[in-house]
Amino acid sequence: MKLDISVKAGKAPSSDLNAAERLADLASADMRRVDALILDRMGSPVPLIPKLANYLVEAGGKRIRPLITLATARMLGYEGDAQLKLAAAVEFIHTATLLHDDVVDESDLRRGRKSANVVWGNAPSVLVGDFLFARAFMLMVDAESLPALHSLSRAASVIAEGEVRQLAAAGDVNVSEESYRAIIEAKTAALFAAAAEVSGIVSDCTPDEIAALDRYGREIGLAFQLVDDMLDYGGLSATLGKKTGDDFREGKVTLPVALAIARADDGERAFWTRVIADNEQTDTDFARALELIRKHGALEATLDAARTHAANACDALARFPDNVWKTALTNLAEFVVERAH
Amino acid sequence: MKLDISVKAGKAPSSDLNAAERLADLASADMRRVDALILDRMGSPVPLIPKLANYLVEAGGKRIRPLITLATARMLGYEGDAQLKLAAAVEFIHTATLLHDDVVDESDLRRGRKSANVVWGNAPSVLVGDFLFARAFMLMVDAESLPALHSLSRAASVIAEGEVRQLAAAGDVNVSEESYRAIIEAKTAALFAAAAEVSGIVSDCTPDEIAALDRYGREIGLAFQLVDDMLDYGGLSATLGKKTGDDFREGKVTLPVALAIARADDGERAFWTRVIADNEQTDTDFARALELIRKHGALEATLDAARTHAANACDALARFPDNVWKTALTNLAEFVVERAH
Repeated sequence: MKLDISVKAGKAPSSDLNAAERLADLASADMRRVDALILDRMGSPVPLIPKLANYLVEAGGKRIRPLITLATARMLGYEGDAQLKLAAAVEFIHTATLLHDDVVDESDLRRGRKSANVVWGNAPSVLVGDFLFARAFMLMVDAESLPALHSLSRAASVIAEGEVRQLAAAGDVNVSEESYRAIIEAKTAALFAAAAEVSGIVSDCTPDEIAALDRYGREIGLAFQLVDDMLDYGGLSATLGKKTGDDFREGKVTLPVALAIARADDGERAFWTRVIADNEQTDTDFARALELIRKHGALEATLDAARTHAANACDALARFPDNVWKTALTNLAEFVVERAH
Repeated sequence: MKLDISVKAGKAPSSDLNAAERLADLASADMRRVDALILDRMGSPVPLIPKLANYLVEAGGKRIRPLITLATARMLGYEGDAQLKLAAAVEFIHTATLLHDDVVDESDLRRGRKSANVVWGNAPSVLVGDFLFARAFMLMVDAESLPALHSLSRAASVIAEGEVRQLAAAGDVNVSEESYRAIIEAKTAALFAAAAEVSGIVSDCTPDEIAALDRYGREIGLAFQLVDDMLDYGGLSATLGKKTGDDFREGKVTLPVALAIARADDGERAFWTRVIADNEQTDTDFARALELIRKHGALEATLDAARTHAANACDALARFPDNVWKTALTNLAEFVVERAH
């Protein structure tokens, strides 16, 4: 099986790169070793397994989570190589949750391609997700750190809790900002937090330092999800495209909607009740939703929240020594917010 | 939340009990502690999670897998309590796979009750399965044995592989006895093997002893699945009931069918091709399938295979000291086969 998951960013002049690409460039030697591990550990004598897993891995994405593990370990001056296995494990957990999410959400598209459940059906998506999840734990065992295993297994449990919480909240127009925050903290930020924390654990950091790494990951994860939720309404440019409107159609009350509902008049509230709670949507409703979200400044408010979390992430790094890795991690937090534009 | 999962068998005179119940009776003090752990670790602030998990745990079953962990640890004279956490982890992994299997197989019934995917839908079944899986790993981390974690995470990966292999084989009338054996060894026997092996690991057994425990679990698991596959065709009494015919309807070629196909004449082969490969089944086809299976002695042959594996399981215990636990584990292997009658 041939798989091109090399870091292409490394070939462009670094001035043209965004912060995620610059970080990938900086970490490219480590990432190549992680990619080799990923390829090796997704192997199975059952052909459908690597085929399906590879379909997702090939689709790419920025690999932000394993990059955080690699970069924090380097920032800390860690000299072992356990972070490579942990980074691969983080990516496997993420990939497994994507596979299961698409089944749960009955999604048709993932990163602009048909989702695996559409190509192969729900059953293989569920089972290959389980396989990757199990293989993630085998990688963690190989990293030989029970505290790192604790961190990542707890994150996996919290992610599932967050997903169930989100499922239970779908269609509820009264979801508070606090519930929304609890959902995204669990379903997204917990894995970012663990991705950073495990580097501190294997680097024998102090509990305070480990807590700071957890905070960096958690805050960048919150910023990331807030911006993702904005982008589902077109971001600040508010351009409707193929990749917008999924949350709306699934009746997910993300922050832009929660804020628009909180600021709604009676007529607007009736609209939200019909489209979200009663799930009765017509072709023009998404445009109307976007109009109301913009009218109430809900995208700007969501972006403000994301900016705050990104700034918190940078603050959390203050205690660590200045080096190119810390700079790259700081820039990454800023980049996560820039995506909104 | 109140949950009655106490071992009721303890109240009956032991002469009326079958071997699984006698083992449960013998291990009841340990099992109560495992039950408390299970109840505690399935807890979550998200109400749907314990509700759904509890629905499966309440439905019961014999808890054979965690009983094997508890009994092997006692047989070995283990004096710690890590086996309690590992037994709970084994049951969580089993429960998670049941939840996912029902989604994969689109099952309506589980242990005579509506399956969780029918009551709550596929999405919560997938996610609560993930939650239990993650919690299983947290329990293993608490048991503080990396080799035990390796054993159980490898088993979880092998189970998923076996399930995918089974999925790929569905509808294939040419499935060989060897492929069938590979499927049940992965999807069923691997967890039984790990359930026994982890006791040896925490008891500091020699590699040979650990291999013997693995063999005990693997062989009893194979016998268990062979008998389960017979029971889907009514067992030796061949009584058709509510709990028969699932494998047939799903086009799964289990050993009774594989043997009947191997011994089929041209007309019979055409029948199997229509009902299994083409999946065109009428109301009378299951009775016809059963007739062919009986005609070729396929149930007896399946039972013979199960008997051989049960005897292998007993042999694997030979090297260990005689005590009541070893006797109970030996009787359990015999009981697994007796269920066929």
